[in-house]
Amino acid sequence: MTHDLDRISPLHGAGGELMGRLLAEHVLPHFEDDPSQIGLSAMDDGATLARPSSGDLVMTTDSHVVKPIFFPGGDIGTLAAAGTLNDLAVMGARPLALSLAVIIEEDFPIADIDRIVGSFAKTLKDSGARLICGDTKVMGVGELDGIAINTSGIGVADPVVGDAGARPGDAIIVTGTLGDHGMALLAAREEFRLSTELTSDVASIWPMIRSILPVGGIHAMKDPTRGGLAAALNEMARKSNTTMEIEHAKIPIREPVRGLSDLLGISPLVVANEGKAVLVVSPEVADEVLDRLRSHALGRDAAIIGHVDDTRPGRVIVTTAVGGRRFLDMPLGDPVPRIC
Amino acid sequence: MTHDLDRISPLHGAGGELMGRLLAEHVLPHFEDDPSQIGLSAMDDGATLARPSSGDLVMTTDSHVVKPIFFPGGDIGTLAAAGTLNDLAVMGARPLALSLAVIIEEDFPIADIDRIVGSFAKTLKDSGARLICGDTKVMGVGELDGIAINTSGIGVADPVVGDAGARPGDAIIVTGTLGDHGMALLAAREEFRLSTELTSDVASIWPMIRSILPVGGIHAMKDPTRGGLAAALNEMARKSNTTMEIEHAKIPIREPVRGLSDLLGISPLVVANEGKAVLVVSPEVADEVLDRLRSHALGRDAAIIGHVDDTRPGRVIVTTAVGGRRFLDMPLGDPVPRIC
Repeated sequence: MTHDLDRISPLHGAGGELMGRLLAEHVLPHFEDDPSQIGLSAMDDGATLARPSSGDLVMTTDSHVVKPIFFPGGDIGTLAAAGTLNDLAVMGARPLALSLAVIIEEDFPIADIDRIVGSFAKTLKDSGARLICGDTKVMGVGELDGIAINTSGIGVADPVVGDAGARPGDAIIVTGTLGDHGMALLAAREEFRLSTELTSDVASIWPMIRSILPVGGIHAMKDPTRGGLAAALNEMARKSNTTMEIEHAKIPIREPVRGLSDLLGISPLVVANEGKAVLVVSPEVADEVLDRLRSHALGRDAAIIGHVDDTRPGRVIVTTAVGGRRFLDMPLGDPVPRIC
Repeated sequence: MTHDLDRISPLHGAGGELMGRLLAEHVLPHFEDDPSQIGLSAMDDGATLARPSSGDLVMTTDSHVVKPIFFPGGDIGTLAAAGTLNDLAVMGARPLALSLAVIIEEDFPIADIDRIVGSFAKTLKDSGARLICGDTKVMGVGELDGIAINTSGIGVADPVVGDAGARPGDAIIVTGTLGDHGMALLAAREEFRLSTELTSDVASIWPMIRSILPVGGIHAMKDPTRGGLAAALNEMARKSNTTMEIEHAKIPIREPVRGLSDLLGISPLVVANEGKAVLVVSPEVADEVLDRLRSHALGRDAAIIGHVDDTRPGRVIVTTAVGGRRFLDMPLGDPVPRIC
């Protein structure tokens, strides 16, 4: 068996000398361990982290199979780190530790591994969390389309913010423009190859969310990824048995997103976002939360898009631009496959 | 787009109504949440767990791409649960919470999902840990060979047992026969289709490991998966800068494993085990540890296979059946691709 040295071979995922070298040369240099703990570079069966002194632990996991793996605004590495950091953030949790498990197709370029892991490290930076453990598996040519990445995360929250706490009278806030990730990915697909100004919003929102938690009065938060705002709001409405009333005109949407959306007939409200949160907050704190969000680069376009009431429990109602009212239903699924 | 209702469609991984139904009907019924926490059935962005009152946290992650997914002795679900529970166990950690992230190929039979998740749940049972969060992604036909599963885990250890603590004079113990998983998988591969008595050893070893931790004097533990005993011992020798001296005649190996190994020319010492541990313990406690291991069904064949000294730091030396001595090198990788 001979292999191109610049590409992944089956032995790179086989637990021995070659896997060790791949990790030592292309993964470990991107990260720094806490010297007081058994970290990533120890390559032990697991890693350790200090038990936090207060709060509840939060755990989350996400696999990423995005296509294409490099897209305007980021890549699968950015997405893997941001996805997990953001899931922790919307639980009100300070991220502590992440894992990175990659499954790679044989013959995948090792230079791309470096680039992807570099993006992951860059996104993790300034989050306060460390990458502490990982796993590498290789599948044969044709057994996997490129690369798939799982990132799990541990955080600590005090208090935990769930997605079920909406109450009538609460304000509904989005932290920025919607539909950017889904529409950018769609435009980047080979079948379209549209040259647009569309860029994914993929980013870690923890630094922004951290700044609003001390305000209090945040009753529910959610990460509007697959299925977009429509899925997030429908879940929040069902779980709290309330009605989410939103106004389409108040939802921030970038012009090129609106344009592609009209062209393809896909609503920006049902596609994934990867650097946004939907918040349901007590009316007394809505302005303060909005001010704090807008002071962050990622929150400049934050807006109050509606309120919670109890007219149609479990449903989402949108007032359209021309003043009509209709249900915004739970989508069957995100219309864009392999969006994240 | 029409789809066979008994098979996975792209919308099953698209974050909306259909994904919710798949989980509600085929995943959630296998598990029980802790009612005091935000658990799996809440399907929130993350899940919560109570902060343990003492010890250090341990995190681990493993993706599984085993082929075939159903094999003698278990399936990819058994493997996903046992792999993570065992990684925690050999760190000395009591498992607290697991995640389950599946990537599924379109058209995969939903009945197989049920069976795999059922195996996962059965293996998790009696470990004391709960499945608290998950993720579901779907790739197109031909983009993934069936199914890949990631399981991450959180445990708590007091004290943590690493893999670097071997000291000259220590005894080396294996908890049972070696090579069973690797050889059973190899025999089950389509290219061989050997009808043998070989069965994978895949199992959760936490109940057994838990019983030896109170003895103390356990200096290092390792899970001899990919690369088998050879990889585990070489890592332990390098990290502690000691020499692992083992005797081939003392290593428990089942007769059919030895037979297939001879036939194929693949040593049972370099293939994966999925229900075993390698322990390096203080000589004073070796007999007590061995007695406790042997009192468990999974440890009946536990044996002292050698000792640690400092004659050739960082190396593993094996005394062969005929009395010769040779280095047992770090394998380049496990010879069996997609072994786990």
